[in-house]
Amino acid sequence: MNPKVTILLGSASDLPVARKAAEILEEFSVPHEVGIASAHRTPEDVRTLAEGAAARGVRVILAAAGLSAALPGVVAAHTTLPVIGIPVAGGTLGGLDALLSIAQMPPGVPVACTGIDGARNAALLAVRILALEEPDLTERYRAWARRAADSVVSSRSKVEGLPPIPGEAYGA
Amino acid sequence: MNPKVTILLGSASDLPVARKAAEILEEFSVPHEVGIASAHRTPEDVRTLAEGAAARGVRVILAAAGLSAALPGVVAAHTTLPVIGIPVAGGTLGGLDALLSIAQMPPGVPVACTGIDGARNAALLAVRILALEEPDLTERYRAWARRAADSVVSSRSKVEGLPPIPGEAYGA
Amino acid sequence: MNPKVTILLGSASDLPVARKAAEILEEFSVPHEVGIASAHRTPEDVRTLAEGAAARGVRVILAAAGLSAALPGVVAAHTTLPVIGIPVAGGTLGGLDALLSIAQMPPGVPVACTGIDGARNAALLAVRILALEEPDLTERYRAWARRAADSVVSSRSKVEGLPPIPGEAYGA
Amino acid sequence: MNPKVTILLGSASDLPVARKAAEILEEFSVPHEVGIASAHRTPEDVRTLAEGAAARGVRVILAAAGLSAALPGVVAAHTTLPVIGIPVAGGTLGGLDALLSIAQMPPGVPVACTGIDGARNAALLAVRILALEEPDLTERYRAWARRAADSVVSSRSKVEGLPPIPGEAYGA
Amino acid sequence: MNPKVTILLGSASDLPVARKAAEILEEFSVPHEVGIASAHRTPEDVRTLAEGAAARGVRVILAAAGLSAALPGVVAAHTTLPVIGIPVAGGTLGGLDALLSIAQMPPGVPVACTGIDGARNAALLAVRILALEEPDLTERYRAWARRAADSVVSSRSKVEGLPPIPGEAYGA
Amino acid sequence: MNPKVTILLGSASDLPVARKAAEILEEFSVPHEVGIASAHRTPEDVRTLAEGAAARGVRVILAAAGLSAALPGVVAAHTTLPVIGIPVAGGTLGGLDALLSIAQMPPGVPVACTGIDGARNAALLAVRILALEEPDLTERYRAWARRAADSVVSSRSKVEGLPPIPGEAYGA
Amino acid sequence: MNPKVTILLGSASDLPVARKAAEILEEFSVPHEVGIASAHRTPEDVRTLAEGAAARGVRVILAAAGLSAALPGVVAAHTTLPVIGIPVAGGTLGGLDALLSIAQMPPGVPVACTGIDGARNAALLAVRILALEEPDLTERYRAWARRAADSVVSSRSKVEGLPPIPGEAYGA
Amino acid sequence: MNPKVTILLGSASDLPVARKAAEILEEFSVPHEVGIASAHRTPEDVRTLAEGAAARGVRVILAAAGLSAALPGVVAAHTTLPVIGIPVAGGTLGGLDALLSIAQMPPGVPVACTGIDGARNAALLAVRILALEEPDLTERYRAWARRAADSVVSSRSKVEGLPPIPGEAYGA
Repeated sequence: MNPKVTILLGSASDLPVARKAAEILEEFSVPHEVGIASAHRTPEDVRTLAEGAAARGVRVILAAAGLSAALPGVVAAHTTLPVIGIPVAGGTLGGLDALLSIAQMPPGVPVACTGIDGARNAALLAVRILALEEPDLTERYRAWARRAADSVVSSRSKVEGLPPIPGEAYGA
Repeated sequence: MNPKVTILLGSASDLPVARKAAEILEEFSVPHEVGIASAHRTPEDVRTLAEGAAARGVRVILAAAGLSAALPGVVAAHTTLPVIGIPVAGGTLGGLDALLSIAQMPPGVPVACTGIDGARNAALLAVRILALEEPDLTERYRAWARRAADSVVSSRSKVEGLPPIPGEAYGA
Repeated sequence: MNPKVTILLGSASDLPVARKAAEILEEFSVPHEVGIASAHRTPEDVRTLAEGAAARGVRVILAAAGLSAALPGVVAAHTTLPVIGIPVAGGTLGGLDALLSIAQMPPGVPVACTGIDGARNAALLAVRILALEEPDLTERYRAWARRAADSVVSSRSKVEGLPPIPGEAYGA
Repeated sequence: MNPKVTILLGSASDLPVARKAAEILEEFSVPHEVGIASAHRTPEDVRTLAEGAAARGVRVILAAAGLSAALPGVVAAHTTLPVIGIPVAGGTLGGLDALLSIAQMPPGVPVACTGIDGARNAALLAVRILALEEPDLTERYRAWARRAADSVVSSRSKVEGLPPIPGEAYGA
Repeated sequence: MNPKVTILLGSASDLPVARKAAEILEEFSVPHEVGIASAHRTPEDVRTLAEGAAARGVRVILAAAGLSAALPGVVAAHTTLPVIGIPVAGGTLGGLDALLSIAQMPPGVPVACTGIDGARNAALLAVRILALEEPDLTERYRAWARRAADSVVSSRSKVEGLPPIPGEAYGA
Repeated sequence: MNPKVTILLGSASDLPVARKAAEILEEFSVPHEVGIASAHRTPEDVRTLAEGAAARGVRVILAAAGLSAALPGVVAAHTTLPVIGIPVAGGTLGGLDALLSIAQMPPGVPVACTGIDGARNAALLAVRILALEEPDLTERYRAWARRAADSVVSSRSKVEGLPPIPGEAYGA
Repeated sequence: MNPKVTILLGSASDLPVARKAAEILEEFSVPHEVGIASAHRTPEDVRTLAEGAAARGVRVILAAAGLSAALPGVVAAHTTLPVIGIPVAGGTLGGLDALLSIAQMPPGVPVACTGIDGARNAALLAVRILALEEPDLTERYRAWARRAADSVVSSRSKVEGLPPIPGEAYGA
Repeated sequence: MNPKVTILLGSASDLPVARKAAEILEEFSVPHEVGIASAHRTPEDVRTLAEGAAARGVRVILAAAGLSAALPGVVAAHTTLPVIGIPVAGGTLGGLDALLSIAQMPPGVPVACTGIDGARNAALLAVRILALEEPDLTERYRAWARRAADSVVSSRSKVEGLPPIPGEAYGA
């Protein structure tokens, strides 16, 4: 089945990021592919991959990178598909460098920036975009969101040894 | 014609942001709507608007806010549509507060963050998303990108009084 | 006995924050309740809880959250009770994101921001507010402050192996 | 009539801050007083004023300062009343220094920090605290909040020349 | 005469940067060329220009960009010539974003980062590099540095109305 | 009369800084001298001046610089006199760069850092140091501090149109 | 023997800071005293100690504190002795909060700020100040500085397995 | 064989930085030397070494330092050779202080700043500069870059348990 989402990493050291995004996509049965290409060391691969993505059926590209994270912007320069950039907290500045590098794109080439190490949210954003074409996916997203809400509710039982807010106070 | 994009502002003081985004959307003939609702002062309006957007045909929501910019996240909490957050440079910190407030969303509720005052890129990102469903829009986006590239090329004539790089050096 | 203070967390991972605040409140015999509700995943619960708090006798709400910490502001939007926001140092930026998200509220909806991971001070601030109505609490606060001062004084004995400042230099 | 709120400035250069806070308090008919005392140049005055405030009927103290803004913390050290600190954007760092100085109080002495130049929110927070004792004030606060919400609604008419979101989309 | 230095801008708005660098190069009679190419809008031009630079006799490339300044890194990816990146203070963060984007290059692709708006120093660094091959240039650099030192000395006469440090105190 | 204080600037553009410091020193009749020497452009002058300062009767050196402000540290490396560093807010980062460059000295070479653009405080610190040897100067410092306190008190009359805190509340 | 230097801590948790400073002072045989007093919890002790220090023969006060480090400024407000502030890296921001709180003192009350956790440099600065009155101390400082330089030289032997710079290149 | 590159450290604690740079230089068979000299503790050694470097055949100087990293700038002040500064992440601010201290050089004395802990890139930048004179080095650099690209390609096999991007998508 053709991948709908490409998860692109600038380096193999970012593979945990890919796994987190892939987990979410698998939860939604969204076919995806994962690869490694560097904006600086293999720029031609980045270009080829970005330019060919739409033709291969890809709808959304996730690109993760740390430090002066050029990858998402370079990918966006070579495709008209929506590109979601994930700043990775490598280095000693907690990912602030990657966040600024990805968010502060110059006018004309948009990148959707997530939070630092925000792979799961990046995948969820991709699902929201894909759901525009697949009503069924919207339903599954709603169910997922309900489960996320339920897990908040059920986590209230962890308030052990503390006086809990009664259920009715939440309107339950 | 039904709006495809909602541009939501937290305050009337952010109207210039809306205008920039609307200009891009008009350039692409994307029907859109512009409104004002505050996550803190009119939270019910935000909720009603977010929950009802999909039913009204909206596909993408742009939400702009400054300071502790809660609006994009609150909108995203009430819809499954993709939400693009635009940090506005109000206050004295150059918009760093709004950028962190919008980008650093907790896991489970994704927001696509643009750069500070990135209204134009937010609109272009919306066009990329809409283009997934409208091949014609992809064509227009490509044409737009070519014009953007051409404007870079033609701006080279502004290098007056300086020794210009010869055209062939650019591969022209 | 009706709770006077609600401690609200955005996530079960912030329970240690609640415990620190609860410890202080117990020290002052202030009845309180602890709960979990997310501004983004269970916004209706946040709203219901905030709107109903005053009717249940609550006087002050403490709300703790990390990253783009929207919870305190959203709570404040749904109540007229004083809301104290506690930025939690989750993520990779040491809580600077949460601090800015909570402190930099837009005009019109006030939140009392404490320091990062400032749960104890948040509880003490709640006690100061409650003490306005309960003169006895003021007395206990003063005694608590005297004990805090005494613990500074007694900690001077830890200056082992170093030439201590003589007691009279402190005016003792 | 005895003042309920003291607005304390570290320097006469912060008088515009006091005026903004006073405007809100006047809107709520909350009696207040405004003064200048410096934590570093007139520390005894700060101490005398803080220690005597409760006896004079004051319920909440607002303290505004810029740079290494010690005033709010020093005031809090000399009273058990709730103290609200307002970081002022003096200097060249946009008030980030004052924000950190006021928010990051050590454990044991709480200060309620507002946003940078957040005088209006500081006054609103004081009103919320006073309203705990004065039910009538709660009513006036609710009316104020409704007017604030209404001003958001009426500001929608400023969306001139842009396609407005229809009223019903807001649930009106 | 073949250019030895290429000054590349990401946007025509950075032309003042190019002029400052060109002034220094003219002072040293270093032949240079100035052009505009965007890492995101005309990536192919950047690549062609970077790949062909050495063959055209260029020895050093200066690349200036603001915001998420990808240009210097992308140029460095397509050449083995030394690349000097100049962060430009566009946007609202004073150029901190561009500084981090240019300095924090991932391992394997070096860029020589200057200070924010450091066009003159970038040109001087280029001269130092060129001087390795041209002993005459080293002499001229030394003379330039002596003049820079002399201008410090002569600026002492501006200490009007203040008690000046006597010349001999400087060892003159 | 021999200067007791040397005010050293890295550049003539910092002369306003020197004037502010000199004003304070004149107020205390402390003989001083003002000069310009650059840690990078005239390092030998800096060295000669620093090494010879003590022999000329100088007791304290003030050194002001912006950006990567090396001057105070380099001066401290060439003298055993106390060196006070003044970070100047040149550039686009509001002086944060200079503050870190001056404050964060490596272990072994101390510099007394003031606030950004803190020339007046630097001079006052010098007076405090000189007063250790001149009891009369301590007296004049106390009188100066009293006048500073008085100016705070008299500035209270500027609280026009606002309800002033009564004098007795300050303990006057 | 009367202490010449007071090392004041805001909390017993900062005792390692005092030890580092004391080590240096012992190396120079400078009599000193160490104590704990909090600007917020025992402000009267801080005042008494600061006001009485000069009378007890103290010449320099070192004050260390973390977070919103008010201690050095409050000490400086109650004495005319030179006060050296040491920002301590408590909390989650690496001491940036304490650095800004101590360095950015308002005009009129000077504090000599060291680097974060800069206890050793604070003590060395105190020695430089004391040496103004004690020529013998200047000699010992010079000897200390020579030993510090020698330790740099001898550390060159640690460059094992790497091609060392020959001694003559250093001018040795 | 005469060293072409000098790697200078401000302190023996930075030796791991030197090793990383030396590894790259050895990979390119570039003769180099490693030493320790402090801008503040042994300034004369820094000066002698910098002034004599060119005469000893050195072409590029690498200088690494942390905190208020003055070393690279001071070296640059005493030579006309290109100087590459490496900010080291010592202290508690993740090297942001060193980055600003090295990058933000005042106009007139250029330093090529790398990323924080960017020793490998510093060495690669030196190789690029040396390659201007040694065509053979350019060839070896290209081969090195190809191997770096190949390692990106081969790292794709690590995408285990995830759906890989097919080779042809990269244009392979």
